[in-house]
Amino acid sequence: MSNPASITPVILSGGSGTRLWPLSRSARPKQFLDFAGDGTMLEQTLARTAGQAGYGAPLIVCGATHACLIPEDGLGKNATLILEPCARNTAPAIALAASALPQEALMLVMPSDHVIANQKAFLDAVAAAAPLAQAGWFITFGVMPTGPETGYGYIRRGESIAEGIFRVDRFVEKPDSATAQGYLDAGGYSWNAGIFLFSAGAYLGTLERFAPDMAQSARAAMGQAAREGRQIMPDADAFAASPSDSIDYAVMEKADKVAVVPVDMGWSDIGSWDALHDLLGKDAHNNAHVGEIVNVDGSGNLVFSDGPLVTVSGVSDLLVIATGDAVMILPRGSSQDVKKIVEQLKARQHPSL
Amino acid sequence: MSNPASITPVILSGGSGTRLWPLSRSARPKQFLDFAGDGTMLEQTLARTAGQAGYGAPLIVCGATHACLIPEDGLGKNATLILEPCARNTAPAIALAASALPQEALMLVMPSDHVIANQKAFLDAVAAAAPLAQAGWFITFGVMPTGPETGYGYIRRGESIAEGIFRVDRFVEKPDSATAQGYLDAGGYSWNAGIFLFSAGAYLGTLERFAPDMAQSARAAMGQAAREGRQIMPDADAFAASPSDSIDYAVMEKADKVAVVPVDMGWSDIGSWDALHDLLGKDAHNNAHVGEIVNVDGSGNLVFSDGPLVTVSGVSDLLVIATGDAVMILPRGSSQDVKKIVEQLKARQHPSL
Repeated sequence: MSNPASITPVILSGGSGTRLWPLSRSARPKQFLDFAGDGTMLEQTLARTAGQAGYGAPLIVCGATHACLIPEDGLGKNATLILEPCARNTAPAIALAASALPQEALMLVMPSDHVIANQKAFLDAVAAAAPLAQAGWFITFGVMPTGPETGYGYIRRGESIAEGIFRVDRFVEKPDSATAQGYLDAGGYSWNAGIFLFSAGAYLGTLERFAPDMAQSARAAMGQAAREGRQIMPDADAFAASPSDSIDYAVMEKADKVAVVPVDMGWSDIGSWDALHDLLGKDAHNNAHVGEIVNVDGSGNLVFSDGPLVTVSGVSDLLVIATGDAVMILPRGSSQDVKKIVEQLKARQHPSL
Repeated sequence: MSNPASITPVILSGGSGTRLWPLSRSARPKQFLDFAGDGTMLEQTLARTAGQAGYGAPLIVCGATHACLIPEDGLGKNATLILEPCARNTAPAIALAASALPQEALMLVMPSDHVIANQKAFLDAVAAAAPLAQAGWFITFGVMPTGPETGYGYIRRGESIAEGIFRVDRFVEKPDSATAQGYLDAGGYSWNAGIFLFSAGAYLGTLERFAPDMAQSARAAMGQAAREGRQIMPDADAFAASPSDSIDYAVMEKADKVAVVPVDMGWSDIGSWDALHDLLGKDAHNNAHVGEIVNVDGSGNLVFSDGPLVTVSGVSDLLVIATGDAVMILPRGSSQDVKKIVEQLKARQHPSL
């Protein structure tokens, strides 16, 4: 369980989802939002390992347009930023980070927009897996499923290879609801949360073997990178030449030694407004309020404002999201309909996206 | 039916109601709002008589803080403004206007924030009543009740004194619902809309008799008034000394010769958000939209914005009102609950009032 090697937190901050519209925008994706007054998702991700023994300074891989959103002081103080010249999905992004590190460095790859409520459980799992990662294994931290979710990939565990660590039997795509329930009934499945631990050398070696063009592009882009202060700017042409693929397809499903560590760590990706209602503290009538809210005789609502005063009276089970220039109202449980709204706005080329 | 005398439209613009919060504010009451893109309520009131034969230039009695909201061109071009130094209810406000006019002038007193869809019916009723007003009668234009409303006073008509004109039998206070239904069943009742026609001399004479302090204050305030361009500023101390009372109590219920002209003129005071839903055009699913609205699979909603984009999806029978700094959501049919919300905000001394 000892953890002598330094682990580099590698934070992927390239996302630009619209599932939390109207709060998340292309100019301010979810990782830069503060949902409950305890820091942005990115800051919470940085805080997870900041000051912990055995961890080095963080590497943040992000889009060039978002660099200014990453704090230069506080939790962002000792971060190095790798600015993606264009989006090529996660495998090339991680290859850039791996190329900036010594072969033997362990990389703890984390999305920048997830909640992990139980930090200790998470860090204990990383510490437990570190010796295997040093030995060339790819570790994925699996989330205990809390329901038959259809929005996540699942990981089926195989034989035990150490206490609490299992060889991955297989990765499975986002299932339909019945299949997901089958996984839960069968047991032995975790959600794939996109949180990984491996050495830089193992990653680049595996990429070289299964996706040599990608490895070559990352190497070339970093070889010709410009540096300015804390920022590394990989060569745009070299990186643009890279195939686009996820780490799951390009590496995790192909590598030889892949293990899963199931962890019960209070994880959420806040993938929807419904998920945020679940996550936030509620009053006695199951209302969650963020911002300046007046709620008269309402129950079961999420009322969220990052600007205007929002008053609701006598309404139940609504998601009400208000920003300075857009307001959205949906029944709770239907937050997937945000997609429909965003599609309508895209068709109009609406500036609120 | 001839109407030889010039009639002065006297528009009372002193209101500052909160029933249409968050759109109406103390700094911008209902009469200065444009609900459907066809001008503010005040402009619609001015338009009612503008350019009509027999009508003179309008007199607008308003609070000093709202003078700047009254247009200096267009419909407001030839208006004279009497700026109330303080609020003393309608009877003293009308006394100021009467003091500015010749004794024989007819005053058509109108609130500034009502809708009258059938202009012709209204003007015909005024023309029919003008000879009686010249003969010293007080005329009130009664609205045909469309339901057992409890928010209005009722007028019971007595004997017919000319075609379509009746002596007022009595004014009755806002009734409860059962009483209101009784009035409807009995017939012979109109709503009191606060629209009056009488001569300046008859008004001041009656006031002198039943409320001499009020008549004296108005006379003194106008005698010492300052004038600047189109504005008349009555003396503040003299007007502040006036008792405060409504024209209904101070004059209409006391005068000898009081008649009602029931008119079916498409009247609404837009006294609530529900009333606005009734009034506006609706789509095939009974939705009324004002502003930039996206409505997916919703029905029976009023969605009103004077700024932000508002998107609703899968919700029914809601009132959704959005301004740049406040959003309100209520079930349709419960717009009286705006009061509860405004009370909560008053208790917090909230700036959005």
